[in-house]
Amino acid sequence: MANAPIKPLALTLGEPAGIGPDITIAAWLRRRELNLPAFYLLGDEAFIAQRAKAIGADVRIAAVSASEAVSAFAEALPVVATGERATAGPAKPDASSAPAALASIRQAVDDVRMGRAGAVVTNPIAKSVLYRAGFRHPGHTEFLAELAAQNGRVPQPVMMLWSPRLAVVPVTIHVSLREALNQLTSDLIVSTVRIVAAELKARFGIARPRIAISGLNPHAGEDGSLGHEEQTVIAPALKVLRNDGIEAKGPLPADTMFHEAARAGYDCAVCMYHDQALIPIKTVAFDDAVNVTLGLPFIRTSPDHGTAFDIAGTGKANPSSLIAALQLAGRMAATQS
Amino acid sequence: MANAPIKPLALTLGEPAGIGPDITIAAWLRRRELNLPAFYLLGDEAFIAQRAKAIGADVRIAAVSASEAVSAFAEALPVVATGERATAGPAKPDASSAPAALASIRQAVDDVRMGRAGAVVTNPIAKSVLYRAGFRHPGHTEFLAELAAQNGRVPQPVMMLWSPRLAVVPVTIHVSLREALNQLTSDLIVSTVRIVAAELKARFGIARPRIAISGLNPHAGEDGSLGHEEQTVIAPALKVLRNDGIEAKGPLPADTMFHEAARAGYDCAVCMYHDQALIPIKTVAFDDAVNVTLGLPFIRTSPDHGTAFDIAGTGKANPSSLIAALQLAGRMAATQS
Repeated sequence: MANAPIKPLALTLGEPAGIGPDITIAAWLRRRELNLPAFYLLGDEAFIAQRAKAIGADVRIAAVSASEAVSAFAEALPVVATGERATAGPAKPDASSAPAALASIRQAVDDVRMGRAGAVVTNPIAKSVLYRAGFRHPGHTEFLAELAAQNGRVPQPVMMLWSPRLAVVPVTIHVSLREALNQLTSDLIVSTVRIVAAELKARFGIARPRIAISGLNPHAGEDGSLGHEEQTVIAPALKVLRNDGIEAKGPLPADTMFHEAARAGYDCAVCMYHDQALIPIKTVAFDDAVNVTLGLPFIRTSPDHGTAFDIAGTGKANPSSLIAALQLAGRMAATQS
Repeated sequence: MANAPIKPLALTLGEPAGIGPDITIAAWLRRRELNLPAFYLLGDEAFIAQRAKAIGADVRIAAVSASEAVSAFAEALPVVATGERATAGPAKPDASSAPAALASIRQAVDDVRMGRAGAVVTNPIAKSVLYRAGFRHPGHTEFLAELAAQNGRVPQPVMMLWSPRLAVVPVTIHVSLREALNQLTSDLIVSTVRIVAAELKARFGIARPRIAISGLNPHAGEDGSLGHEEQTVIAPALKVLRNDGIEAKGPLPADTMFHEAARAGYDCAVCMYHDQALIPIKTVAFDDAVNVTLGLPFIRTSPDHGTAFDIAGTGKANPSSLIAALQLAGRMAATQS
């Protein structure tokens, strides 16, 4: 059982019309049973009260400041006002959606950087809604990296999907498979794995992380007969990483890396492209995988699903992934501090 | 429980220096406990007796003809002579390896085509050993397709990996990922899925097969923003298949196709490349997945592993996949006949 962190977790609102408010309420209702770390929602008290009513949840809400959140948490869902009111109904994003979602993210980053929160946990946003409102970042993670810039230097964010059974990191992410082949370089593998290794030590408490690195091609290229990238791109990266003292093994055939016995041999699998990493983790941990952003100057976790407009406001949304994200953020914050 | 087929299964020797002989003996020893369908090994009686001794297995061996195999099976491991003696020791392929392995495959195909056997089950071969002896086929499966040619027409073999929990078919197979992108066409998807649908009906007894077809890119291309092949290659193939009356759905995001609830929605997943298909099945069915070759005029199954020279002759080889291959071949033969 992880110790509760001293500081509360800052939970963003996400898209108000999505399931973020629903799963936030559902997670808070299970706080005692699951011994959840204290968190507060950055949003709008009246909006949350209304959504609680819509899904028939009996929730006391406390409008607080971040410093009051830990003591309020046992008896009420702490809400810290962002000043942006949300008016969107379930599944109906409106003009309030983007300002409310963005203010919540900005304030969460401020809170964690100023030491008022121990970590940022983000509810799902609707990229298309934000784009219509003029948002110019490729996604949630890149926006957080921009907000995390120090002296104008934007950090390289690294996406990890984590579950108790498997943790994976794709080196290339949200690009076509053809573009992933073009983006894959030894440098990108090296910079990614360095961040993974550093965070597994600092925030996951693993003294000597064991990292498994996949091949790109079937059978990891079968000595070059099924593709050359293992020899020309991945092996040189492994050499650099081992010189760093990082325990990295590979390139491994991706299809035999993920069964239970194989998973016992490493702490994180670093894969060459999106589906190579996400197929195995969503196969073995569909409901409770957590999205963790590594490489930022603060801890950020997120449920591994979208806004699910089709079930927003119905009470049917499954809070498992948000609960896992809160638990992991609490554990990482306690490990780091 | 499947009915035993009337005809025995023809089991090939595979590479004599590999674990094929070991797992053949181990499977036969469990014939009663598992109610295995009757099979016979196409090989060399003295060689098998020697290997049985090496692994300390108490096996009676009966030199028989194919027509005697079913009645001999209960009391002895039936061996039908190919006329090629094998002399290779465990892990030590020798000059006898290629002739013995190839004669066994040729005779198995003869037997099934002449009605002496109900199906062909193949033990693993060592491609490098065969290549050194002048073998000119890309692999086991392509060699079988050549042997299956009728009037000079070589059938399109389709590789299925099958387990009780998941069945998958990759459209492109043993080529680099870059080459897979080049090989992927609507025609190839259509011809592959037609074969899958026809065999699920004829040999798996599924009256109306439900086939799930993956996208190629992350999130199945996310409406074209992460790649175009879903729209230009896969969707047109789906249209043709649905016009055929085939129940095919897709293109589906590959990462959310393989968790337990999703798998309940289809009988077979057709994927665009090797790892997309093999990662999920080897994650959920590492020990007992079966390689099935569809599209041939006879049934062929195979364990889903290689020769494992490092443990040949030690008695440590796990016969689970060969046992699953024998069971599935028996069931397919009974369904078809």
